[in-house]
Amino acid sequence: ADPTAIAGATDRNGQLTKPPGALGRLEDLAIWYAGWRGTDRPTIKAPQVIVFAGSHGVCAQGVSAFPPEVTAQMVANFEHGGAAINQLSKLYGAKMDVHALELDNPTADFTVAPAMTEAEVVSALRTGWDAVDPNADLLVTGEMGIGNTTSAAAVAAAIMGGTATEWTGRGTGVDDAGLARKTDVVARGLALHDVSDPLEALRCLGGRELAAIAGAIAAARTYRIPVILDGFICTAAAATLAKTVSGALDHTVAGHLSAEGAHRKLLDAIEKEPLLQLGLRLGEGSGAALAIGVLQGAVACHSGMATFAEAGVAGA
Amino acid sequence: ADPTAIAGATDRNGQLTKPPGALGRLEDLAIWYAGWRGTDRPTIKAPQVIVFAGSHGVCAQGVSAFPPEVTAQMVANFEHGGAAINQLSKLYGAKMDVHALELDNPTADFTVAPAMTEAEVVSALRTGWDAVDPNADLLVTGEMGIGNTTSAAAVAAAIMGGTATEWTGRGTGVDDAGLARKTDVVARGLALHDVSDPLEALRCLGGRELAAIAGAIAAARTYRIPVILDGFICTAAAATLAKTVSGALDHTVAGHLSAEGAHRKLLDAIEKEPLLQLGLRLGEGSGAALAIGVLQGAVACHSGMATFAEAGVAGA
Repeated sequence: ADPTAIAGATDRNGQLTKPPGALGRLEDLAIWYAGWRGTDRPTIKAPQVIVFAGSHGVCAQGVSAFPPEVTAQMVANFEHGGAAINQLSKLYGAKMDVHALELDNPTADFTVAPAMTEAEVVSALRTGWDAVDPNADLLVTGEMGIGNTTSAAAVAAAIMGGTATEWTGRGTGVDDAGLARKTDVVARGLALHDVSDPLEALRCLGGRELAAIAGAIAAARTYRIPVILDGFICTAAAATLAKTVSGALDHTVAGHLSAEGAHRKLLDAIEKEPLLQLGLRLGEGSGAALAIGVLQGAVACHSGMATFAEAGVAGA
Repeated sequence: ADPTAIAGATDRNGQLTKPPGALGRLEDLAIWYAGWRGTDRPTIKAPQVIVFAGSHGVCAQGVSAFPPEVTAQMVANFEHGGAAINQLSKLYGAKMDVHALELDNPTADFTVAPAMTEAEVVSALRTGWDAVDPNADLLVTGEMGIGNTTSAAAVAAAIMGGTATEWTGRGTGVDDAGLARKTDVVARGLALHDVSDPLEALRCLGGRELAAIAGAIAAARTYRIPVILDGFICTAAAATLAKTVSGALDHTVAGHLSAEGAHRKLLDAIEKEPLLQLGLRLGEGSGAALAIGVLQGAVACHSGMATFAEAGVAGA
């Protein structure tokens, strides 16, 4: 982030026609955004939402309430404008892109082999990197992939420590038997692979869409594009970067707290406080997209408000 | 609310391309909105934000960090588009109206006399009622009035019970001595007036902008316009309606939790869970306006998403 822009934005914030601090977290958000965009009076004109889709070999273990073909069906729904993320992207003026990553070639079932080869994970990371529009001024990375909360739970447990039980949740809505099965699958994956390195955890336990998200978030950093993180899966992918390079998520903010049980624990681990807590657990980038509206509000106030001097208003 | 529209919206919600419940509170919001608008597939096209401003005689007691002339200065700022609420109204496509209520004729200092006569409070209620555009499809009622957190604390204490200390907060940012002074002022107001009737509490301890807010919220009910409540002052005004007629706030949702200390207690008392918790304490309707974006997101998903059948997606 640009210290001059941060200083300028902080100074401007102090002059706006409001009691000091009265816009609460919106003030911090606007200054953070200004720092990454390198200007003390930024605007948000070109948000980009990218939805990455992947297929998971671990679905063979019966970890999801939905059949795996739903992934491709939902990609078609994204392309035809019928999903939740389409409505939210349109509402907040974001360009939405969809990248389906080899849906006909699922990752390996991580209870028997690494989910991806090195070449495969690198390819997925690159797809994510290349998907980012360098001219975007805000990025949301969403995902679709039946089975991917299982994968995210395994990645989170691998990089943060703790048991499979602590990190495994109900995803799209498995019942108690399904949750027990999922938890066992995660435990077996953790036992099978040597996952002391975060990117190796992403390769052995992750999925193509998780790797693509990590690649996109890293690309956004080089372009100084602030990122709004979505729910559990997006955060697990992002956390592999934070565990690899300290501060790697400084250009990101947590868009929301998902209803997926372990999301709070994961956000705590990367020291992010969510902007919204509305019980969403859909994925697609939906929670983060909803937070675009909040960030736009923060930036609109910061850059559009009159100062005390401009408005002729007496200070405290 | 229209039970047929609620049933239709609930049915539609169950068919949308998402796991059941995966949009969390957005689903409840959309169904609630549909019920009040009387259609199972509503849209939000004409939000209205109204900012009411009033002058408070109780300012003579030194209850605010800002001088009373700031009220008129901020009204000018609203009219020139320089305040936070202007930026948020513009961002979310809301029409914004400003009503200054006799700023040169402050209410009486409620530590010595009733804040308003019966004629004055009725006039303010009517101003609020008449300010609502019957063609609006969403309403935010904001306020500006140096001294009005003192007034709101007194009204809240009068109608909900409890001590002045429990209901009095720092407002725009008074120091410890200021807070002690404010609390004493509220206690003296409560001791002076017979406030067993909620509307009498509004008259004796409230302000013109609080009465106008109550009038506007009541008018919105007759027009079936859903209302997003703002912070402590707006909620105190609204609560006088809830205490007068049970269910009077069923067409409202709490937009945010203000940083003003007693707001949570007041929301609990009217059984409203805030949509946002971002530490705002500005007033003007700013927290509620920020929630317009969230409600628009809820309604956009509900009315714009494809069903499982339309999209050819397999259910769970």
